[in-house]
Amino acid sequence: MTQRFAGIYTPIVTPFTSTGELDEQGLVTNVDRYLKSPLTGLVVLGSNGEAAQLEDAEADRAIALVRDRVPAGRPLLVGTGRESTRATIAACTRAASLGADAVMARTPAFYKPQMTSDAYVRHFIEVADASPVPVLLYNVTMYTGVNLLPDAVEKLSEHPNIAGLKDSGNDMLQLSDYLTRAKDGFTVLAGAAPTLFSAIAIGAHGAVLALAGIVPELCVELVELVRAGRLDEARGLQRRLMPLARSIGPIYGVPGLKAALDLVGLTGGVPRAPLRAASPEVIDTLRGQLTTLGVLKEEHAASH
Amino acid sequence: MTQRFAGIYTPIVTPFTSTGELDEQGLVTNVDRYLKSPLTGLVVLGSNGEAAQLEDAEADRAIALVRDRVPAGRPLLVGTGRESTRATIAACTRAASLGADAVMARTPAFYKPQMTSDAYVRHFIEVADASPVPVLLYNVTMYTGVNLLPDAVEKLSEHPNIAGLKDSGNDMLQLSDYLTRAKDGFTVLAGAAPTLFSAIAIGAHGAVLALAGIVPELCVELVELVRAGRLDEARGLQRRLMPLARSIGPIYGVPGLKAALDLVGLTGGVPRAPLRAASPEVIDTLRGQLTTLGVLKEEHAASH
Amino acid sequence: MTQRFAGIYTPIVTPFTSTGELDEQGLVTNVDRYLKSPLTGLVVLGSNGEAAQLEDAEADRAIALVRDRVPAGRPLLVGTGRESTRATIAACTRAASLGADAVMARTPAFYKPQMTSDAYVRHFIEVADASPVPVLLYNVTMYTGVNLLPDAVEKLSEHPNIAGLKDSGNDMLQLSDYLTRAKDGFTVLAGAAPTLFSAIAIGAHGAVLALAGIVPELCVELVELVRAGRLDEARGLQRRLMPLARSIGPIYGVPGLKAALDLVGLTGGVPRAPLRAASPEVIDTLRGQLTTLGVLKEEHAASH
Amino acid sequence: MTQRFAGIYTPIVTPFTSTGELDEQGLVTNVDRYLKSPLTGLVVLGSNGEAAQLEDAEADRAIALVRDRVPAGRPLLVGTGRESTRATIAACTRAASLGADAVMARTPAFYKPQMTSDAYVRHFIEVADASPVPVLLYNVTMYTGVNLLPDAVEKLSEHPNIAGLKDSGNDMLQLSDYLTRAKDGFTVLAGAAPTLFSAIAIGAHGAVLALAGIVPELCVELVELVRAGRLDEARGLQRRLMPLARSIGPIYGVPGLKAALDLVGLTGGVPRAPLRAASPEVIDTLRGQLTTLGVLKEEHAASH
Repeated sequence: MTQRFAGIYTPIVTPFTSTGELDEQGLVTNVDRYLKSPLTGLVVLGSNGEAAQLEDAEADRAIALVRDRVPAGRPLLVGTGRESTRATIAACTRAASLGADAVMARTPAFYKPQMTSDAYVRHFIEVADASPVPVLLYNVTMYTGVNLLPDAVEKLSEHPNIAGLKDSGNDMLQLSDYLTRAKDGFTVLAGAAPTLFSAIAIGAHGAVLALAGIVPELCVELVELVRAGRLDEARGLQRRLMPLARSIGPIYGVPGLKAALDLVGLTGGVPRAPLRAASPEVIDTLRGQLTTLGVLKEEHAASH
Repeated sequence: MTQRFAGIYTPIVTPFTSTGELDEQGLVTNVDRYLKSPLTGLVVLGSNGEAAQLEDAEADRAIALVRDRVPAGRPLLVGTGRESTRATIAACTRAASLGADAVMARTPAFYKPQMTSDAYVRHFIEVADASPVPVLLYNVTMYTGVNLLPDAVEKLSEHPNIAGLKDSGNDMLQLSDYLTRAKDGFTVLAGAAPTLFSAIAIGAHGAVLALAGIVPELCVELVELVRAGRLDEARGLQRRLMPLARSIGPIYGVPGLKAALDLVGLTGGVPRAPLRAASPEVIDTLRGQLTTLGVLKEEHAASH
Repeated sequence: MTQRFAGIYTPIVTPFTSTGELDEQGLVTNVDRYLKSPLTGLVVLGSNGEAAQLEDAEADRAIALVRDRVPAGRPLLVGTGRESTRATIAACTRAASLGADAVMARTPAFYKPQMTSDAYVRHFIEVADASPVPVLLYNVTMYTGVNLLPDAVEKLSEHPNIAGLKDSGNDMLQLSDYLTRAKDGFTVLAGAAPTLFSAIAIGAHGAVLALAGIVPELCVELVELVRAGRLDEARGLQRRLMPLARSIGPIYGVPGLKAALDLVGLTGGVPRAPLRAASPEVIDTLRGQLTTLGVLKEEHAASH
Repeated sequence: MTQRFAGIYTPIVTPFTSTGELDEQGLVTNVDRYLKSPLTGLVVLGSNGEAAQLEDAEADRAIALVRDRVPAGRPLLVGTGRESTRATIAACTRAASLGADAVMARTPAFYKPQMTSDAYVRHFIEVADASPVPVLLYNVTMYTGVNLLPDAVEKLSEHPNIAGLKDSGNDMLQLSDYLTRAKDGFTVLAGAAPTLFSAIAIGAHGAVLALAGIVPELCVELVELVRAGRLDEARGLQRRLMPLARSIGPIYGVPGLKAALDLVGLTGGVPRAPLRAASPEVIDTLRGQLTTLGVLKEEHAASH
């Protein structure tokens, strides 16, 4: 069965100007670079897009800018998770009206003891009932501190307007449970570059990867190697990518990703407080990792 | 040294009408009841006020309504935590302009791996520098999944506009560390009714308690017994309060608290989704606990 | 480079008689069945062998009995982990004298805060220096509550008498770290059947699996399918095996494994207290899973 | 109702000679010092006695040596926890025959997923049925990675040969649950010096404290101050003791405790591997803390 929205995506960052406002030019520059890559599509306003730190007006502006560049046929996914069901629905509706092909709604997470599978099923059904475009569930335990369990996903996969799920963790057992239990046709996207090889091997239909914002071609190549059963080559490539995958993921997070973007000639810049710019030591580490991968932009080769 | 904002508070809930809008009449009714109690003051827009689920306009309206009832001399604290530093500052400024005596700013919590003590120190210093009224730090690990460590609190206690901290956990070791390491005059408020006895015994300067929204007089009495060294009586009272303290705290959360308010004749109502109204079974449990404490409103005595 | 002790093993259980003594006949029966299977070798006195609950004399007797049946050329590994370094060395020496081809020494785990990577490096070097036969490190976090980190394994892999490691967890990221960081020739064995597919795919050199004590042929087939790059078939087999893999692993543990052995016509019996025999409900679940796999022994087909 | 074995105890360490054998003279020296203190009694072979690392013969010898010095009327408790029920019973029987007044049996902990409250209830009932002397339950989550829940303790408190429990954690909520739910007359002993004040305040009947092996008089004084309702003085003393309480507990563990014993003129020495002697830096820290408390032995005052 066809998996809607299968493929390799990158979550684009939200660059800011020196006064802390949305850097529209930087945003567009990054998008244009990705459109020349083999990436399937883009995710705006994900965790790496600092969605949690944006005002609604900024978020809407970012969607509009990206939509304007991304041609039909390359899916544009938009993060719309909020803490209340009604605010999530409002965000989905706004994103759809701005041209999102689908929305990616992370789990509400504040009232953790009450966030049971039942609560998530009811929440996402209400969201999916109301959303004008298909919904992708979004589980990102590292940031939310909650976990969307396979039993909830199994039920939610029955909803005609829930197209799939992105899980950002490295738990391959949970990923394989999603794949086994969800309805046929439900799309499961991985979200953690350090386990990309494993995720694709066990059958994930694609991935949303910050790493693909730095080395989109290599990410797509890794996926294709696995699918071709060329496991030795795939393992080798995964190992080469591992240090950077960790740096711009769990270790240095958004500040690391933004610094790496600057180092490859794209636009990263300073994240919004309480996040802070990567330190010179972190930038040196990233410079070394990017050099090893052959993607450091020449002008950044000299150390500070 | 005098502790600013020492005392016993309740975080007031935000009641909604049947259509999901702010129930202004219900809000005012609850406030008026508390003003007749021995409580020191009130907290608007805390975790129990479903702050995470409110729009800014609703939040502002709630502050204005409460401020209108609370006389000078009884502190009105307002929750203003947001994920970004700038949104937090904006919320503090708005709360101050609406008459807050102090703001209570919970830790930003989304980018957990980056939320180090250093990040919190920088964040709260920026907030305190900008806030027109004193700031209380707010640590609520159960909901945020992060923890504000004593080393950060030690540094932050030096700031002239940071008056104190509320910690909602049951970790008495951490609470005593706050007390030992913070600067003289820094106020430490407990936030967990199940360990109220212990918290006051080890020297906490007060507490912010959902339980005090149901039985304000008993909470104040417990604190006074401990302070008078009447430990046997205090222990006995703590034990009597324990079942309800747990029900409307970790076990049933905001839905439990709102149901309990209805059962004692105040206004609770239905929480905002993804939270759901307490089930009939939960309401029965609460009815039993309130009956034991002698505070069930007569008309609710018959089971459903 | 050749990996010593690479291959697929099963950890054999320690059956007891109705009076709680070592069931020698049952032990031998099981061993003889495995020797007719394609399994590489056997592990005596692992976690599934209830090693933690045996007296030294019982352990020695079990080793001797198994050694007597296992021909040269099929590796016999013996669990020798103890809480003190000297007791571990004594157990290694005894096992070697009884004919073990290698020992598998789990991490000491009682004094958790002191069990740093440094402590483990020193411990295992002392053990490896003293052991007459090669040592395999054994990390089983589910039971020990500690974790042997890749930095320690990297150092320990340099020791000429440390041949490899078994890790019983499902963390594929850690497993790939072991593989990347350990010295060439160091053998990494997986220990969790629910992630067997993933572990072999990322390059593990084999596995020690309780599941292989029930369906040795299917476990070996799964490994061969992955290695042949026949990922679709391998995934399908992994899914078929998953329910049983979980039942006799994390869910029902040793009691589940022993009950399953009885149901396939081998000798399981009652575990030693505080472990208890699987309940009738658990046995029914296992019966269903074994029936699906076509390995239930006919006489056990009728429910209790 | 009278609480059997209420009071303040210290768990004595097991000193070793330079060749790693039991240091009988050192053991006796320590015991004689404690007998001159106001301590209620002693615990041999607890976690701090490195029980997990001793051979049975060594353990028996330690019991005999201590029993020989401790007069009737001062309770001698002996740690007898093992992983199997039958080994635990054997240890209890041996300890009783060597003169133990009661045994302290920690929770078996290896097969964590199977160690339910039901399993613990059955285990401890079998132990208590067989033990010739009263049994104290022993919960030490920091080391075992398991937790003996209040529901199990409630049931076990009904057994006539189970006299009480020691819990080594800092969780005051759990401690108060034990006190509330256990049968009248069941003794609850705290085991964590950093929360000694809180534990006694909420009603614990005593404590078993490594700290009492260094400063027995101050520990007893703290307990008496709390019981007299002199909370300000008690809080002050708790704060003075806090740094040392942490050093020889969670931070540096047995190696820290043994180093501190040496510094106050008692016998600590080197722990058994994989534990290692405290580093010079740790010893310096301890020296400072002991100096502050005025208990450093003069000859150790000069730094290395």
